[in-house]
Amino acid sequence: MRSILLLLEYDGTAYCGWQIQPQGPTVQAEVENALRRLTGEDHHVIAASRTDAGVHARGQVVVFRTESPIPPEKFCLALNSRLPEDIVARASFEVPETFHPRRDAIRKCYRYQIHTGPIRPVLDRHRVWHIHHPLHLSAMEEAAMRFVGTKDFTSFSNQECNRPDADNIRTIERCTLISQGERLTIEIVGKSFLYNMVRAIVGTLVDVGRGRFQPEAIETMFLAKNRRAAGQGAPPHGLCLEWIEYPPPIPIVGERSNREDRDDW
Amino acid sequence: MRSILLLLEYDGTAYCGWQIQPQGPTVQAEVENALRRLTGEDHHVIAASRTDAGVHARGQVVVFRTESPIPPEKFCLALNSRLPEDIVARASFEVPETFHPRRDAIRKCYRYQIHTGPIRPVLDRHRVWHIHHPLHLSAMEEAAMRFVGTKDFTSFSNQECNRPDADNIRTIERCTLISQGERLTIEIVGKSFLYNMVRAIVGTLVDVGRGRFQPEAIETMFLAKNRRAAGQGAPPHGLCLEWIEYPPPIPIVGERSNREDRDDW
Repeated sequence: MRSILLLLEYDGTAYCGWQIQPQGPTVQAEVENALRRLTGEDHHVIAASRTDAGVHARGQVVVFRTESPIPPEKFCLALNSRLPEDIVARASFEVPETFHPRRDAIRKCYRYQIHTGPIRPVLDRHRVWHIHHPLHLSAMEEAAMRFVGTKDFTSFSNQECNRPDADNIRTIERCTLISQGERLTIEIVGKSFLYNMVRAIVGTLVDVGRGRFQPEAIETMFLAKNRRAAGQGAPPHGLCLEWIEYPPPIPIVGERSNREDRDDW
Repeated sequence: MRSILLLLEYDGTAYCGWQIQPQGPTVQAEVENALRRLTGEDHHVIAASRTDAGVHARGQVVVFRTESPIPPEKFCLALNSRLPEDIVARASFEVPETFHPRRDAIRKCYRYQIHTGPIRPVLDRHRVWHIHHPLHLSAMEEAAMRFVGTKDFTSFSNQECNRPDADNIRTIERCTLISQGERLTIEIVGKSFLYNMVRAIVGTLVDVGRGRFQPEAIETMFLAKNRRAAGQGAPPHGLCLEWIEYPPPIPIVGERSNREDRDDW
């Protein structure tokens, strides 16, 4: 029995998120179906991140166990001919039996894309949140800095088991804005995230950019420990899980700051 | 009666091309329907380029005539709420009655996107031609130079009325390759193009990149004046009409070499 890691890219538009559920198609179901057709085995695939409906991934990491004699590196191409056109495996290799894609992650990077201006985007409309009005970038940058560090993110999560004793403390290593014409990318890097946390941070930053909150208000939101104290949640389709870093020997390249270097996995 | 110019962006994936036809939806039909709902008039919209099924546009230029009292600049936003999500008007303004979007064009720019490598693209799969094998870039660049100039492009067109006396002489001002990792963009600029000419040039360049032809073979293809002498046609979905330049006073910015500056229309 070996453990195989798959690096997945997918367009989340047509899916009810990663995790299998009764209503509608999921990425997990598609991957498990493709694996079953390939190996004849029933697989349970574990993902590093349970992305929501409409959320995309360039660097989702998943693991499954198999007794198949297929060489680990061959799973990638063998699966791709069995996966739908909106899901692809970018790499596959064997990992230690003890490897867990979520617990072992050192850091994950999410990017959120926003298009500002009166004209809605068309060619990448499924990957970009359209905000009609201009955004105050320097206020957003000042607010973004306030998310960096180890904090109780209760106010920025829709965590269902929101018990008072739940551990909602998380560490954000980076929260950066990259502005290029009408495009704004928000890059958020951290070890792990609460449910809907990235979208709550992005939505709150946009509220700051529109002048609904001052950057200092972020501190009050943290103290409130109440989701209603923070800003709106950003819609899912602007969000993409970009990459995940693991300790050696897992051969996944580390932190990548350049938006264009995703091909060097 | 005024003439109004619309600058259109569209995702051609769902359409049977620009021009109205009996089978299936077209961009022209969608634009004319939206105009009819806005003005109550029946419009005939003339485009600078009759893009094929699956071909996209960031800078298609179209013109219609109207007696509507709507201010020219207001057509853009008024239409956008009536157009489907895969078509948008980026600008609208009045032009002289004599203006013709095709005849008056000084130059047009098309870009063709290619993804090379064993892993198929997912997030922009509707906009990129996937070539599994590596391409020999310097051979392609040498071949690309041979398309520049004023030549008889009969061998690089599926022009239906391919009469011997037809004027198949066209001028290519630029044919440039931009390579970035696994992505290759081919940019072609010229005053006007024969039917399927850009896709025939791109397909032939890819054949050179795969070693099926030497760059010098392009000269023989030109001399043959026969479509069968040239290489394959590239599929439509990698192609995008980027911008069109007109003489003043038409306020459309001129040649743009930077791939990222499309927002400055």
